[in-house]
This record gives sequence, structure tokens and C-alpha cells, in this order.
Amino acid sequence: MSGRLRTIVVGATGYSGRELIRLLVNHKNFELVGAFSSRSAEPLSLAEIHPQLTGLIDLDCQPFDEATTARINPQLIFLATPNEFSHEVVPSLLETGATIVDLSGAFRLRDAALYPEYYGFEHTRPDLLQKAVYGLTEFSRKELSNAKLIANPGCYATSILMPLIPLVKAGFLSDLQPIICDAKSGVTGAGKTPAATTHFVEVSESFRAYNLFKHRHTPEIAQGLGVPNNSNTLIFTPHLLPINRGILSTVYLKLDDQVTRENVLSTWRNAFNNAPLVRVFAGTQMPEIKFVAGSSFCDIGCTIDRKTGQAIIVSAIDNLLKGAASQALQNANAAFGLAGEEGLR
Amino acid sequence: MSGRLRTIVVGATGYSGRELIRLLVNHKNFELVGAFSSRSAEPLSLAEIHPQLTGLIDLDCQPFDEATTARINPQLIFLATPNEFSHEVVPSLLETGATIVDLSGAFRLRDAALYPEYYGFEHTRPDLLQKAVYGLTEFSRKELSNAKLIANPGCYATSILMPLIPLVKAGFLSDLQPIICDAKSGVTGAGKTPAATTHFVEVSESFRAYNLFKHRHTPEIAQGLGVPNNSNTLIFTPHLLPINRGILSTVYLKLDDQVTRENVLSTWRNAFNNAPLVRVFAGTQMPEIKFVAGSSFCDIGCTIDRKTGQAIIVSAIDNLLKGAASQALQNANAAFGLAGEEGLR
Amino acid sequence: MSGRLRTIVVGATGYSGRELIRLLVNHKNFELVGAFSSRSAEPLSLAEIHPQLTGLIDLDCQPFDEATTARINPQLIFLATPNEFSHEVVPSLLETGATIVDLSGAFRLRDAALYPEYYGFEHTRPDLLQKAVYGLTEFSRKELSNAKLIANPGCYATSILMPLIPLVKAGFLSDLQPIICDAKSGVTGAGKTPAATTHFVEVSESFRAYNLFKHRHTPEIAQGLGVPNNSNTLIFTPHLLPINRGILSTVYLKLDDQVTRENVLSTWRNAFNNAPLVRVFAGTQMPEIKFVAGSSFCDIGCTIDRKTGQAIIVSAIDNLLKGAASQALQNANAAFGLAGEEGLR
Amino acid sequence: MSGRLRTIVVGATGYSGRELIRLLVNHKNFELVGAFSSRSAEPLSLAEIHPQLTGLIDLDCQPFDEATTARINPQLIFLATPNEFSHEVVPSLLETGATIVDLSGAFRLRDAALYPEYYGFEHTRPDLLQKAVYGLTEFSRKELSNAKLIANPGCYATSILMPLIPLVKAGFLSDLQPIICDAKSGVTGAGKTPAATTHFVEVSESFRAYNLFKHRHTPEIAQGLGVPNNSNTLIFTPHLLPINRGILSTVYLKLDDQVTRENVLSTWRNAFNNAPLVRVFAGTQMPEIKFVAGSSFCDIGCTIDRKTGQAIIVSAIDNLLKGAASQALQNANAAFGLAGEEGLR
Repeated sequence: MSGRLRTIVVGATGYSGRELIRLLVNHKNFELVGAFSSRSAEPLSLAEIHPQLTGLIDLDCQPFDEATTARINPQLIFLATPNEFSHEVVPSLLETGATIVDLSGAFRLRDAALYPEYYGFEHTRPDLLQKAVYGLTEFSRKELSNAKLIANPGCYATSILMPLIPLVKAGFLSDLQPIICDAKSGVTGAGKTPAATTHFVEVSESFRAYNLFKHRHTPEIAQGLGVPNNSNTLIFTPHLLPINRGILSTVYLKLDDQVTRENVLSTWRNAFNNAPLVRVFAGTQMPEIKFVAGSSFCDIGCTIDRKTGQAIIVSAIDNLLKGAASQALQNANAAFGLAGEEGLR
Repeated sequence: MSGRLRTIVVGATGYSGRELIRLLVNHKNFELVGAFSSRSAEPLSLAEIHPQLTGLIDLDCQPFDEATTARINPQLIFLATPNEFSHEVVPSLLETGATIVDLSGAFRLRDAALYPEYYGFEHTRPDLLQKAVYGLTEFSRKELSNAKLIANPGCYATSILMPLIPLVKAGFLSDLQPIICDAKSGVTGAGKTPAATTHFVEVSESFRAYNLFKHRHTPEIAQGLGVPNNSNTLIFTPHLLPINRGILSTVYLKLDDQVTRENVLSTWRNAFNNAPLVRVFAGTQMPEIKFVAGSSFCDIGCTIDRKTGQAIIVSAIDNLLKGAASQALQNANAAFGLAGEEGLR
Repeated sequence: MSGRLRTIVVGATGYSGRELIRLLVNHKNFELVGAFSSRSAEPLSLAEIHPQLTGLIDLDCQPFDEATTARINPQLIFLATPNEFSHEVVPSLLETGATIVDLSGAFRLRDAALYPEYYGFEHTRPDLLQKAVYGLTEFSRKELSNAKLIANPGCYATSILMPLIPLVKAGFLSDLQPIICDAKSGVTGAGKTPAATTHFVEVSESFRAYNLFKHRHTPEIAQGLGVPNNSNTLIFTPHLLPINRGILSTVYLKLDDQVTRENVLSTWRNAFNNAPLVRVFAGTQMPEIKFVAGSSFCDIGCTIDRKTGQAIIVSAIDNLLKGAASQALQNANAAFGLAGEEGLR
Repeated sequence: MSGRLRTIVVGATGYSGRELIRLLVNHKNFELVGAFSSRSAEPLSLAEIHPQLTGLIDLDCQPFDEATTARINPQLIFLATPNEFSHEVVPSLLETGATIVDLSGAFRLRDAALYPEYYGFEHTRPDLLQKAVYGLTEFSRKELSNAKLIANPGCYATSILMPLIPLVKAGFLSDLQPIICDAKSGVTGAGKTPAATTHFVEVSESFRAYNLFKHRHTPEIAQGLGVPNNSNTLIFTPHLLPINRGILSTVYLKLDDQVTRENVLSTWRNAFNNAPLVRVFAGTQMPEIKFVAGSSFCDIGCTIDRKTGQAIIVSAIDNLLKGAASQALQNANAAFGLAGEEGLR
């Protein structure tokens, strides 16, 4: 690959967009040539929108329109935009020949029939759902190579699928009881638009569960694990933590009788042998949010009660990084044949 | 006084309104007979608006209108409403004969000319500005007795005036340099309406100054101290703390050469002799927000550099209580001849 | 009952001790006549230890010794002390004839054999374990009447047992899978002694699970539910929230096929008919920590997936109040025949 | 310079040490060859001490002793150690010929006579106080070149000196009133050792002033500004914010009558022309902690009341970066002739 790839970010005003821009500023192979908003009608400097970026980049964020985008002729497009917006613009953007990494949920579920219930709209391009590569990078490197449409996984789904997929593949799980995923996320996961639920006073010194039995990441996790999407098989409960960044997931599952903690750890070590962003916690220390906040790591650990085979998996990621922007970059790296962690340390 | 006084709260959906209701529920002499909103168009149970109140009170919050209010025939009205709303409804509510405690700024400044600059509207009732009693309770008991319109002080102003008024009265202040008030408030002070500035992620793990040289509590403090409203005399800078409740003010002032810390402490002790809600910190421990959060106390302390007469005053209140609802109740108590702290412990 | 009961608090320097004192100050029937520390060697005023209490109470906290206690001749003793300390002093304190409410875990488990594993010491008084009343007030009023030794439940255990006991009694639970209790607590639950794990920087902006499969509240919950203490039946995982106060427990359980949400709600309503401190959330709003922080309430709610019988129970308490001091007072009220909520609103 | 410079960090277990290590891992010219603790007696892997560093570096932290240090033969030594420790070891470490950047206060004050009062010990090497370069990098590049002993400035002092030094040099300040520095810091500034004052519950939802009139950064600021160390000239009050990282300083000063905001801004622009880590806020947006947290920037802004010449300066830094580790690296860069910002973006 000669020269840096012309790259744009659409959805540059949100938190994921901002993190993408921070990462792109230091990326050797991608050159940020445009930043767009799916909402605002006027151009604003990125430093006005995100004063954090002052002195790091001197670029305006433009209202998105397809003609401007076409003129810029990007080779790589990141969409950090609402589901409906991505659903709408992806088909025509694909025609430009650019590689698209979509951080929304618009192309994550292969089954179009799930969209009305979980996303509130009819999906008009079931064909693209089949073509899109679900970019949980560590498990999809082959499909990602030269992919044109990459569906970047949900933050909660990432935190749960990373440790569980190798265990499912290894056939370790008993089907006697549901996999129960009790996940807790910081507030950046709820986006930047002010709302009663993200008001400081409503969040601080409090804690709450939400979307019981019906969060949209549930079918995404079921799809990723290859299990039926019902609560006898899989339960996922998100909670809102009074912190800015990070997800910790506590997952309860029953393993087959002979499976030991060492089996789990070695299965993980094999699965993540070439995955420098996954850290397996093998001692008594379990993952905590503070160890991953601000980093691209996914930390995973487990404890097993040998008498019963009951296991508890704990995983931690930064929801804006491994749960969004970093994984998007990993996916773009993989699509263009770069090392998985380029620009992510 | 026979029987409990029929009392209503207008502005029951906000934080100050909620605190007023909590306090009224336990008040021996006031009976909460109505709750109103200046904004919402439909009745909602108070427990739906403020789930904290579930099981404490069974009352609907109604859209405010004057006819309904008249039917209820309240003897005591608390307005925890926007400035413009209070400005508009106070004149006709006064005609009902009820005592009004207005928690907004609409009747705090005696000089009507300040309203356009500091509040953004022309004041149409300068006559009422002269009649309204500024209810910094500990200093206004006499005027409060039988008062009909009470302007409840601003939260920042309360935290600064409480310790300073006795020192000004004692003639302790040198006029060589401005009184500099560096105040820090929790987010409830910014109200409950969602905004970019109160989004959890924008506030948490951060801190900022705002409204430099132009916060509307500046002329209120100047008026309370009886000093000119200019920055060679008085500077007030508010800051936003990543906490829910509480104000800590650090005030810098130069005292006359002979004034000692013991002079200040004894002046305070005299001034607050009959004021059980004011606590004078006389040791090395200075006031902190955690000592007053959730209480009606105002804590005050000071340190003086004897070599120079430079003094630092530290005061702390809960902005929703002594800075709003508790002081409103103190004022209502005083208006009706009840003990100042009834219902406030 | 004539006159107020002479009451002392041992362990007055900690958070639970402080909350007990705040509640006792306003209690009609109990008079706080002594405060003691199990640790400090010198008397200190309560206001120096807890500046929050300045102006509320004027009492010294004394180093505990039995002779001084005997002289005071208390009728009611609250022990907010370490497990080992309670274990040691309860036998002789019982001989004074006073009623003892022990907030530690020293007398909670009926099976003495569990103490070495879960509490790290041999229990020397298995006879007292049989006699002690486990004071989950709403379920133990009869045994509490005239009780002499009351074991105040653990904070986590309270949050989980309150909603679950009525469901177990009703026979609603399937035994196909473990009851999984994923609980999250604020930092006051970890006590006041400074430690690496309670350092602000280690807790703030983070979140972690701890004591997986081995927290001492596990056998307490099993005992309260009347189920075996093994992980095929019951799993309890505590987590540390970056907040001061409050516990939210998310409990996963499988109900028998026919059980509906309405069955659960009406079972709760019956069970808590005369329990004003329990609030059943019957709408879409689930309990959240902010609704109970600073109050004595226990809020409970549930969601059921009718297709599968999988249920999620959410409960919230203030760990220092219903999880400690308020329940201690409820228990003392019950022991002396007073209304359960005296002094708790 | 050929090859990377052999570099060690002493005081690797603390927060500043950890940040230094993170920065060194990515530094092109410095190679971290040793990490030491001034306290712990046994070697521990850095990843055990700081799980954040897992996968980033594979190095043990050794108990410090001079013999081991000599064997390693470092060319660059960072001391992130207590004042007394630095005071003790610097003289002999200097003899090894290495360049020392001392992050403690042991060599910051030129006047040895101040040490007993402000640091609690007699300084035994006044000669080294004269030789040490005070490394406020942007103002000391010339003296830093080839410096052997660099005193890294205090975090508060940095936040205040950065904006003020250019204004003092420009002769803008009136001497009619003291420069009043009201500064607020996150808790990492208090160090990692657990203490009552850093317990989560004591800090969270609270705020307090401390060390009124006697913080040790006061004489450091006076020295940096070249003004007398008395409270008629300079007052500095630190406060503790319930956040992890960041300092915001609000500085009140009176400027000479003719000085305008544009004068201040252009003076800053000139002073920081070649200082990419200083960002001058020239619009209505003032610096906030969130804009600098996690970065090496120092943000500065000001507002002036033209009628009176009263000015408010607001500055923000990350106390662990520009206030400690990043500035240490800037200083090391300057000592070895590297670009000021190498390794700091």
C-alpha cells in the first residue's frame, strides 16, 4: 500500500466519532480528510465541538451530503451515525467503492425480520445484511480482508462475545440453564444527546437496570454465539453505571462437569494467541473497568466452582474504544491488510 | 393559629419543588393540599415524577392555573418556578391574600433597572420589589413577620451573605481590595431540564468556571452586603462541581489590621446566637460540603493571616435546602410566627 | 412503656454507627445515653468524629469497656462493631439484661460450622446462635417481640431476601437452575477504614466484582431462603459501585410455568401489607438506587418473560439504612412493641 | 544521539511513576531499563502493581538500592519519590553522571531556609538548590539544555505559573491587591497511599479547601513569579475535587488600567509560540478540566472587566501529566536536545 488512505468520519460530533478522530490523527496509514455530521446544518470546527481536539487537528465538521463526500473520494468511511441514518446511506456509499465501517447496528443482524422489533424500522436491504461482515475483529480476520461493508459490533455484545465465543466453540457449555449476562456500562454508551436519563443528577450516586429482556444487543449476542434468541438460552441485562467510560460484564454459565479453570484459560490463550489487545487474567485479580478505561484492551477472567461446574466470566472493555472506535480501526486495518493493532496502543 | 395552614407548591416537578414537598410532608403546621407544575400540561402523580416520594405522599401534580388555585384557597404558596413565571403570576396570587414565598429571582433585587441585564426581562412591578422581603431568614425575622411576599435568596448568595453580613455590619472590612467570592456548586443548582451542560459525561470527572463577571447573583450579593455592584468591590465566580448537592464558597477579603480570628468568631456567635441552623467552625476543621449535604445547616469558618489581615472565609450549604427549600420553609415559619427551625431537623 | 429507654451505641465511629446516632436523635422512645468505640483509646466528641453531627448531639464517644457500660445501665444496646468484637462481648452484655441488636455477622448464621470458612474464626457460642433472632423485620415480628439478642441482617442479604422470601414461601420457584444474585453496592458498605480498595482513585470511574463464589452473605441468603448453600442452587456476586450509598440487586430466577407478574406482585402486596417501608414497583419503572438513598425504604420490582418463566427481580435499599441502621431500629422497635417505622420516616 | 538512552524510574508504584512508564513505553529516544520502588521490599511485576500496564511492558519493579542502580548504569533517572527520599539520594545519584529529573519538591526552592517550614526537614545541600534547574519547560529551555539536576515543578504551581509568568514579564500586573489563586485538584494529586482524606466516601459528593495560607506550593509560585512570599502579594488556596485527574486554577488579579484582553492573549501567543502543549483559549469558551484530562496540554484563558482592570485567569492541566510525568519528559527531552513534545501526543 503506497500513500495514506483517504479517510472520512461521518458522525463526528458524537463520542465515538471523537474517539475515532483521536485515533486517526496518529494513524500511519489512514489520513483523515473529512469529518461530517449527520445532524448539524452548519460547518463547525472540530475544536469547537470537541475542545479536547484543539491543537490536535485543524478540520471543519461539515453537514453530511453525498455530493461533497463523492468529491472527497474517500477510500475508507467510518459511520458513527444513528441506525436509521446508516441504513439509509450505506447502499449509495457502497457504490463509491469505498470501504465502509458502520458503527451503528444497521447491518449487524443477519435476520432482517428482527429489525422492526429491536430497531423500530423495517430493513430494506436484507441482501446487504448477508454481505456485511460482522467485525468482531479477533474472530473475523479472514472475512474482513478486503471487506467492503463491515458492521462494527455493539459495545455490550463485544464485551460478552469476546470471552464466550471460544468457550462455545470448545463445546464447554452445558445447556441446562441460560447464559446470564449482567452487564454494566458507563454513560458515554448512551450517547451525547441530552436526556433526562443522562442528566448528571439522575445518574450520579445512582445505578439502574434498563431494557430488561428487550435490549437490542440480545439478538446480536445470540447470533454471535450461535444460540437461539430466547430467555431460556440467553438473558442479557444492561445497567447504567455513574462513570463516563467502560463496560464490565459478569456472565453466569454452567460448564460441563470436567471443564476446569485451566481448560478455560488455555482455550482463551489459544484463541487470542495473536490478539495483543486481549488480556487473559489468569491469577486471582479479575478484570476491572479502571484497567481498560482509555485503552483498546479487552480484559477477560473467570472463576469456576469445581463442585458444580458453575462459572462466572468477568470481562471489561472501554465502550468507546474496543466497544466502538478501536474495534472500528482494527476492522479497517484488517480490511486493508494492516496489523490489527496499528494505531491502537 | 388553629389547624394546619393550607399550603401549595407551584413548580413541583423540579428539584427544589421536590425538596419542599419532602419537608412539608413532615411539617406540623403546614398541610400540603396542592402541587402544581408551571410547565406540564397533564396531571401526573408526584410519585411518578419523583419516585423518591412513593409512599410518602399521595397527591397529583396538576398543571397550574389560577382558577384551580383559587378554588383550593391556599394560605401559603411556594413558587419554585422560573423567574419569568413568578414575575407574571405573583401580582394576581397576592390578591388571594395568601402568603407567597418565591424561590425564583423575580423579586430579589430592589433595583428594577438590573432586571434586563441580569434576568433578561423588564420588571413590570417595581412597586412589589420595594415591598418584597428578602428572606435571608437569620437577618430578616422582623420584616418576615406577617410578610405577604417573600423573595427567597439565591443559593450562591445565601452561602456568601450568611458569613459576610455580620462582618460588614461590624465594620471589619478594609476597602483596599475587592471581596472575591470563588463559589462551587453541585449540579442540582442547574435545574432538572436536560442540557448539554448537565449531561453526565460533560460534568463527571471535570470542573469548570462559568458566567465570569456576569452571574445574576452578583448584584444580589452586592445588595445584601450594601456595597456597590462593581468588580473593584465584589467579584463572584461560580463553578460547577461534579456532585449532586452542595455549595462551598471560598471568600477572600482584607480585614482591618486589628481584627483577629477570635473577633470574627465571636461576631458570628453573637449574630447567630438564636440561629440553630448556622454552625460556626471554630477549630482547625473548615466546613466541607459533605457535612451539610442533605441538611438545612449553613456551616461557616475562617482563617486570617495576622501579619497582613488577609482573610479566607469558607462556607458550605446544601443548595437545595438552606439554599432553597429549607430557607423557604424558615421564611414561611417566620411569616407565621413559628420557630425558625420547625420541620427542618 | 413509660420514659424513654436508655440506649447506647457501640461502634459509633463508623458509618453505620453514625447513621444509628442520627436516627436515635429523633426517636421518641429511645434516648441515646452513651456512644462507644471498639477501637479508639481516647474519648472524642461525636462532632469531631462526624462533623455532620455538629449541633445535633452533644456527646462524647468513649472507649468501650464493660464496667462503664454497666454503670450506664442501658436497656438497649446497638453493636455496630467488627464481627470478632461482637462475638466476644455479646455473652457478657446479655447478662446485663439489656436488649442487644448486633449489626455484625457474629450471630447471623445458625450453623456454627460455617464461621471458620466465612468469618475466619471459630464460634464459641453455638447456643446463642440458636437463640438469636435473625431480624429481617418484616418477616420476624413475632420472634422479635421481647427478643434479647437480635442479629441484624447483612446489607446484601437484606436486599435479596426481602423480595425473594415471599416467592419461595409461595412455592413459585422452579429448581431447574440456580438463583443468581448479581448485587452492586456503594462504598460505605466497605467501612470507613482507609484501604487501597476504598481509595477514591481506585473506585471512581471504575467498577469491579469481588469475592466470587465466597462472600459471607451467601450462606446467610441460603439460610434465609431455606435452600442449600451451593452454587447449583444459589450464586451471589457482589460488586463495588463508585457511589457512597445504596445497593441494587438484580436477581435471576426461573419461576414455575404458570406464575405471572401479577401473581408475584400480589404475593408481595400481601406479604408487605403492613410494611410501610417496602414499596412494590408495579409499573414499568424499576427500582433505582437514587429512589432509596438516604431513606429506610426497600424498593422491589420484577419482570417476567411469560414464554419461559424466566424472571428478573430488581431490589434497591440504602445499605446504611434498611441495610443496617434503620433495620436495627425497626428491630429494636419490634422488640419493645413499638410501631415498625417509629423514627424512620 | 545514537541508540536509545538507558532510563530508569524510581517511585514506580505511585500514580506519577505509572504515568511516566506509560509515556516511556512509547518514547523513541528513551528506553526504560529499570523500575524501582522507594518503599517496597520485594520485587513485583509492574503489571501486578498497575494492572493497566499488563501487555504494555514486561518489567519487574525492584526495591531501590544504589548498587543495583549503578550496575544498570542509567543515563536518565526519573525520581517520582517522596521529598525526603529525593533529598537523600540525589547527591550520590548525581555522581553517576546520569541526568536526574526529580518530580518531588526536594530541589524546587532556591532558598534552603524555606524547607523546614514548608517541607518539614532541614535542607542539607543548599549548593544543589542553586544548581538545580526549575523545569517549567516552556520558560527554561536554555537552562535545561545539558542540565544534570532538574527540579520538576509542582502540579498546582505549574497550572498557575504557566499563564502568569508572561503577564508578570510584560509588566501588566498592578500591585494594588494580592494575586489570588483559587485552585482545585483531583485526588491523584494526593498520592496513592490510603488515608482518611482520600477514602472514596470522604471525597465523593463533597468538596473542601485545605492548607489555607500554608501549602508548600505557595513559596514555589512566589519564586516562579519573582514576587515576595506573603499574603498581601500572593494567596494560594488548594481544594480537593471529587475527580481522579486534573487541576483547574481560577486566578484573580488586577491589571494596569490600559491592559486589554487582546493584550493578554497576544502576550500569551508570543510566549507560547513554540510551545505546542500550551493552548490559548481566545473565544468565549474557557478551559475546563475535561479538555485536558489524559493529555499533556496546559489550557489557559482569561476574562477582563475593562471598567476596572480586574482580571480572571482560568487554567487547566492534567496534574499527572503536564503537572508531573509529561513535564518531566519535556524536561528530559530538553536536557537531551529533543523536541519538547516527543512522546507526549
